[in-house]
Amino acid sequence: MQNFTFANPTKIIFGKAVVAKLGPAAAEAGKKALLVYGGGSIKKNGVYDVLTESLRKNGVGIAEHPGVKPNPVLSHVRAGIAKARKEGCDLVVAAGGGSVIDEAKAIAAGALFSGDVWDFFCGKAQVREALPLFTALTLPATGSEMNCGCVVTNEATAQKFSAQGPAMYPRVSALDPETTLTLPREQVANGAVDSLAHIIEGYFTASDTDAAVTDEIVHALARSVVSSTLRILEDPADYNARASMMWSATLALNGLASCGYGRMNFINHAVEHSLSAIYDIAHGAGLAIVMPAWFRHHLETDGPARLESFGRAVFGVKTADRTIKALEAFFRKAGAPVRLKEAGIPAKDIPEIAENAMQLIRLWGMKHEQPEIEKILKKAK
Amino acid sequence: MQNFTFANPTKIIFGKAVVAKLGPAAAEAGKKALLVYGGGSIKKNGVYDVLTESLRKNGVGIAEHPGVKPNPVLSHVRAGIAKARKEGCDLVVAAGGGSVIDEAKAIAAGALFSGDVWDFFCGKAQVREALPLFTALTLPATGSEMNCGCVVTNEATAQKFSAQGPAMYPRVSALDPETTLTLPREQVANGAVDSLAHIIEGYFTASDTDAAVTDEIVHALARSVVSSTLRILEDPADYNARASMMWSATLALNGLASCGYGRMNFINHAVEHSLSAIYDIAHGAGLAIVMPAWFRHHLETDGPARLESFGRAVFGVKTADRTIKALEAFFRKAGAPVRLKEAGIPAKDIPEIAENAMQLIRLWGMKHEQPEIEKILKKAK
Repeated sequence: MQNFTFANPTKIIFGKAVVAKLGPAAAEAGKKALLVYGGGSIKKNGVYDVLTESLRKNGVGIAEHPGVKPNPVLSHVRAGIAKARKEGCDLVVAAGGGSVIDEAKAIAAGALFSGDVWDFFCGKAQVREALPLFTALTLPATGSEMNCGCVVTNEATAQKFSAQGPAMYPRVSALDPETTLTLPREQVANGAVDSLAHIIEGYFTASDTDAAVTDEIVHALARSVVSSTLRILEDPADYNARASMMWSATLALNGLASCGYGRMNFINHAVEHSLSAIYDIAHGAGLAIVMPAWFRHHLETDGPARLESFGRAVFGVKTADRTIKALEAFFRKAGAPVRLKEAGIPAKDIPEIAENAMQLIRLWGMKHEQPEIEKILKKAK
Repeated sequence: MQNFTFANPTKIIFGKAVVAKLGPAAAEAGKKALLVYGGGSIKKNGVYDVLTESLRKNGVGIAEHPGVKPNPVLSHVRAGIAKARKEGCDLVVAAGGGSVIDEAKAIAAGALFSGDVWDFFCGKAQVREALPLFTALTLPATGSEMNCGCVVTNEATAQKFSAQGPAMYPRVSALDPETTLTLPREQVANGAVDSLAHIIEGYFTASDTDAAVTDEIVHALARSVVSSTLRILEDPADYNARASMMWSATLALNGLASCGYGRMNFINHAVEHSLSAIYDIAHGAGLAIVMPAWFRHHLETDGPARLESFGRAVFGVKTADRTIKALEAFFRKAGAPVRLKEAGIPAKDIPEIAENAMQLIRLWGMKHEQPEIEKILKKAK
């Protein structure tokens, strides 16, 4: 078990009707909020009304920045920064899924930065400060509501890069599972895949695999994501399954699932980012394609031990091969694509995808070369 | 799954040689530390030297308050408060196990309180502020290094009571598993029992048992405590087992193991506090006696469902009865007493113990009467 630091200052308020508690919390941090949201689903599920009323009632003014895309783009981040400055916002409130929260983080950091916000993403600058951030999560998937990272796509260069920094931890995140009851099935699937991807990256790429407590936590969260998703598919109105899924997705990427693993990497994410950067597919869909392929590659390079442990604990199967099949079967059952062609991505593009992925692999300091990435992608044909 | 709040601001630095990092952290919070410790084991295992050098090198002065007892007593807390004031301490550093950290919390809160510190424990006052607290943990057991509660015994009245308040969260806790390599076997056993008790109180007393993700976390932590302890008994020099145990014990009572369970209580702890208040036995030893008895009582009052789930996940057994037997066998193997007489406590004292326990049961607002407590204790004869 390797040395680690665990520190996570985000306060989670979880359950029914918690969105209304964001107003009083935000009022302690500032006077005018930039309200960041996406395509308007928060106006249908009631979050918009509850949140804006709660902010106004507590004396917090609002400037709106709607229209965040599912893979948030740099131009829209820049527009948000400009609006936050022009309107004199001293805090940011995000209402939506991980994309909305990620863009809100980039805006919160960019608004206090004299340079170009993209510098945070391509490693030229570090996030030192950010406007206080509050979130109302409506889609369990990315874990962004309880971590300090964010992912933005530079649409001019087709680069989907990430930035981190403790200043971007949300102060308070409100997680109301009722806001997820109306999610389309596709987003349920993508959220489950994304959460699982977060849970397993450390487990399978750890430089130190003798961290029994973290292995147990990884198994626990993976079991919970799988069982909750199956319950949701069975009965979309199952509140407790929605709640379990929501909290699992948060815990999947708040730091807990990698304590003591030492050096690890986000290989599945690095490859997937190219898919969604080039083809603008959902992050979860891209991961459902990459993960089984990468698992088959991992079996060849690292042997069956970890896959067997994972499969036994999560799917009750005994071999590495059956673990991969069980994972694929789960993704299919949830409705996610598990091959490139199922997402309309032609196999002839594999070299281009791999080349794009290499940018992020180099930026993240990972030890993989383009032929290996192409080999992984070919297993997803 | 019931509404909950999760907020835990303590920063954990975990692994080899982390104690030396407390000096720089403490220097950001103040200029003079009250250094709280116990019977001097930190002078044998090297923690004292590393910690005091780290504090001094970073310009933090030290006033010492040694001699904390395994069940920390009110008179010694009061002496610590007087010393902190007299020496002008503006922060507190605790080095040792849960008792040391608990006393340090009480001192940190008491030093800024104009009334009597015992008021925090008997419900007459709330902790509003406390001196900044830093800890170097040397005994995995109580979880005090990452929560905001503390337990102190009023030796004049034989009352072992607790106090809570967010101001008492440690700022930074340093957890070096190497400092636990020399723990006597008895403390390994007591730590394992105490951690398990923290893990299971919510699980078995929850008003809402449909919180699948938290059930999975409970199972994960319990499995980790059991497997790590068995490895430590086999080979006390097994660093990774010590590390897994240490982090498991912290996670056992940092809030994670009860999210969504709704109303719950600490019945095993309430009954045990009487045993250690009256007989001054180790908290872990007392819990090893109370828990199996309470489980048998729980089986009669609540049926086998939870015991079966827990036993299946943690011990691989199928019935409630076998779960209780497996738990008892684990405690025995670790070397903990599982009956009152094994700790030299006469069965004729049961009414007195139950009467003492009723004070805490009433204070904590729990719905149990003395005859029920006596019934539980009789199962521990």
